[in-house]
Amino acid sequence: MPAGCIFCAIVEGREAASVVAREHGLVAFLDSRPVFKGHVLVVPEAHAADLAALEDVGPMFALVRRLALAVPRALGAQGAFVAVNDRVSQSVPHLHAHVVPRSKGDGLRGFFWPRTRYDSLEERDAFARRIADALAAP
Amino acid sequence: MPAGCIFCAIVEGREAASVVAREHGLVAFLDSRPVFKGHVLVVPEAHAADLAALEDVGPMFALVRRLALAVPRALGAQGAFVAVNDRVSQSVPHLHAHVVPRSKGDGLRGFFWPRTRYDSLEERDAFARRIADALAAP
Repeated sequence: MPAGCIFCAIVEGREAASVVAREHGLVAFLDSRPVFKGHVLVVPEAHAADLAALEDVGPMFALVRRLALAVPRALGAQGAFVAVNDRVSQSVPHLHAHVVPRSKGDGLRGFFWPRTRYDSLEERDAFARRIADALAAP
Repeated sequence: MPAGCIFCAIVEGREAASVVAREHGLVAFLDSRPVFKGHVLVVPEAHAADLAALEDVGPMFALVRRLALAVPRALGAQGAFVAVNDRVSQSVPHLHAHVVPRSKGDGLRGFFWPRTRYDSLEERDAFARRIADALAAP
């Protein structure tokens, strides 16, 4: 565990947080600067910097799924946004998944970034092949 | 399976797509209008509308994790953005996770939405309690 990891400090109770759940080696607590109130972060208790460092993500995303159902139910929202910024735009280098309550017209369009296009189907297939190869590589 | 589900059509090969992986009841293929080239969608083969409809998300997010490592490696990117728009801002009503290649300075800040603040620690704790109660409810 790196010295000064704020999420390790929350896990260990050295730093205050509003904890929502603690189970199966995971802690869920409220982001102190939420996108919307009720914005939850889910972290593994044992320090893992990023997705590469956590081999079995099943339990973590099982809890993320349950929170994606529970948060809207708790707050009268219509859905949820689930996200992980892995390495890039990752503000704290301790793996965390965001679960944000969403409702239509809340001003947060999930994907409002400009989209691009592939130059051709051949280009698209070439990208798919490169990714498939990397996925298969040891 | 609802008639006209575009992702079911891709799963069944009735609609063209650049497929990256097909395993464990899941298909990964390239988003045809990517945020960045190499933007992958992961879907369960069996139609599931949203996270509520897929009880065991472990295999799905195991593949999402592997893609979050493989996509940057394949494309020379530095990280990945993983996201699920559950119900709200969900463009196709067939559960799908996005895996988008990310690099610093790519113009896509992962969380560039305005953040808010809780009025008080008491308010924050009250939100945490409501969510914890909903999580515990049957």
